[in-house]
Amino acid sequence: MMFRTIGQKHFMDTAAQKNPAKLPVVGVTLGDVNGIGPEVVARAAAEADARCRVLVIGDGFVVRRALDLLKLEREVRSVDKVADARFEPGVVNVLETKTLQPSDLQPGKTTAAAGRATVLAFDAGAALAKSDEIDALVFGPVHSDSIKASGLRKRVVTPEFEQAHLFLVSGTLRIAHLTDHMPLRKVIDEAVKEERIHALVKLVDAQLRRWGVARPRIGVAGLNPHCMYEEDTNEIKPAVERAAREGVDVTGPVSPDSVFRQCIEGRYDVVIALYHDQGHIAIKTWGFSGNSALYLGAPALLATVAHGSAFDIAWSGKADSAMMSQAIRTVGSLAAGTGFPSS
Amino acid sequence: MMFRTIGQKHFMDTAAQKNPAKLPVVGVTLGDVNGIGPEVVARAAAEADARCRVLVIGDGFVVRRALDLLKLEREVRSVDKVADARFEPGVVNVLETKTLQPSDLQPGKTTAAAGRATVLAFDAGAALAKSDEIDALVFGPVHSDSIKASGLRKRVVTPEFEQAHLFLVSGTLRIAHLTDHMPLRKVIDEAVKEERIHALVKLVDAQLRRWGVARPRIGVAGLNPHCMYEEDTNEIKPAVERAAREGVDVTGPVSPDSVFRQCIEGRYDVVIALYHDQGHIAIKTWGFSGNSALYLGAPALLATVAHGSAFDIAWSGKADSAMMSQAIRTVGSLAAGTGFPSS
Repeated sequence: MMFRTIGQKHFMDTAAQKNPAKLPVVGVTLGDVNGIGPEVVARAAAEADARCRVLVIGDGFVVRRALDLLKLEREVRSVDKVADARFEPGVVNVLETKTLQPSDLQPGKTTAAAGRATVLAFDAGAALAKSDEIDALVFGPVHSDSIKASGLRKRVVTPEFEQAHLFLVSGTLRIAHLTDHMPLRKVIDEAVKEERIHALVKLVDAQLRRWGVARPRIGVAGLNPHCMYEEDTNEIKPAVERAAREGVDVTGPVSPDSVFRQCIEGRYDVVIALYHDQGHIAIKTWGFSGNSALYLGAPALLATVAHGSAFDIAWSGKADSAMMSQAIRTVGSLAAGTGFPSS
Repeated sequence: MMFRTIGQKHFMDTAAQKNPAKLPVVGVTLGDVNGIGPEVVARAAAEADARCRVLVIGDGFVVRRALDLLKLEREVRSVDKVADARFEPGVVNVLETKTLQPSDLQPGKTTAAAGRATVLAFDAGAALAKSDEIDALVFGPVHSDSIKASGLRKRVVTPEFEQAHLFLVSGTLRIAHLTDHMPLRKVIDEAVKEERIHALVKLVDAQLRRWGVARPRIGVAGLNPHCMYEEDTNEIKPAVERAAREGVDVTGPVSPDSVFRQCIEGRYDVVIALYHDQGHIAIKTWGFSGNSALYLGAPALLATVAHGSAFDIAWSGKADSAMMSQAIRTVGSLAAGTGFPSS
């Protein structure tokens, strides 16, 4: 994992700072078209609130079918570039990727065609986000078998995002991860180091300020039970003290078994988790139904939802679009520099 | 930590196996009398259901005052030995420890007298539980400063319980811990070993059967993200496979970020957590309000509640006795060999 620090190119500015008058445009890909992605995206786009503009990225005919399935009477406006989109009530704008034929729609099946469409839409959206043509990208739920079948690559997310710090948001529980899929022993040996923790505290502080959190309150989890041991004292504590001296509102190390509950109850704006399961056990066991994942220190504001493509109920109209709507609201609000949405 | 295995003396039998006709007697200490312990114990004892018999262990005049504070019209029957207790409606039996004077009641203050009373009541209750004069002990919330001031020892729980496996219960989430306050590095180096994990799986299986869970379904958490690394494959997997071959209904290693949520939703009766925070983050972040802690592999059935002595609201009548009631119900049901209570 690379540890990006503030001052590097990947520090994100927000749309609001560039042009406060402009409403952010959030690109949204459909994910695997044979899963529930098209349904949840179509509904979320159709019912998006006025605080951000949704631009679907994919095949317009798929969006049309999903809207019909859901009995949502909206016009689908197909465009070839972002500038052609017109954000009006009753209209769903789709940036056409022209990747699929109607015969490629095979609900519940993993296919190379769907995988290829998934990857190409992601790449198109990520490129637009990196070049500031859109302000953020939310990508719909993918299926890794389809992606592998496409032969393009193994995972939809590219290394520049995978190397960023995973940032999970679930209601008032927000968690920035120091490490991701790293063995626990290696986390202790290599990652729980004063420099790395200090850099992440500073990155979180700076990024949340840009996103509109006036004075981010950061809690840093300890490594050991009740922060009683060596690494808590020799690595985490000095990192926190140094950042605090530099003006960051940061507390820690906090007992790992308390810090997440304290965040849920409003004591912090964000918790820094030292390893994958420290953060993931907290957020997945809590079970609040609105998780989305962002990438902190990545070259663009990107989010995805916690649920999968749910092939078993695809194209039945049963899928719940709440998480997708919440992810769009979240990145829209952050891109506008107005902080995390309260609802 | 000692790893007790089945076949050793600390394997617990239940009251039901010794005498199915007898209702279990649950001893309950008051904890620190200047905290909320007397209130929550008095209410829980006064309102206990008919499935177990509650015997308070402490000073009867303290219980009398707490019942008066709560406007609960009950007779306090002071006894000097368990056999003298008569379990009738409207009566709260108190096994007198004769440790305090009325002037020792100083709500919100830590005192040596209260600490001494806390320790002596615990020791009396633990001795009765070990000698089968009572079937289980629940101890009220203590204050470590009072205990230290007493000069008797530092903590109320004695080593024979501290060396057992902590077993947390919170609704449908039940967690047996392989280790407790051990540094995370040492957990990986010394505790996550096939032999130790296998022994705990067998102990959990045998103990839960005795407690009345017909065929315990056990989930074992992995160590690393998504169980992708060395220890998951070389230590945890063979331990689980060996226990499964021996007839235990055990699954694992299961991704640590999924196994606790799966338990909440009913897939397992209990999860084995490898380290303190793996289990504690899950149970404390979930936030279900009914936690109690048991000691697996200890010489008696003992439980305590997750909340503290809350000196700030002591003797105001505001304290919530739900956790104390739940702890009493839980050990009563286990001692009767009827499994975990459903409510």
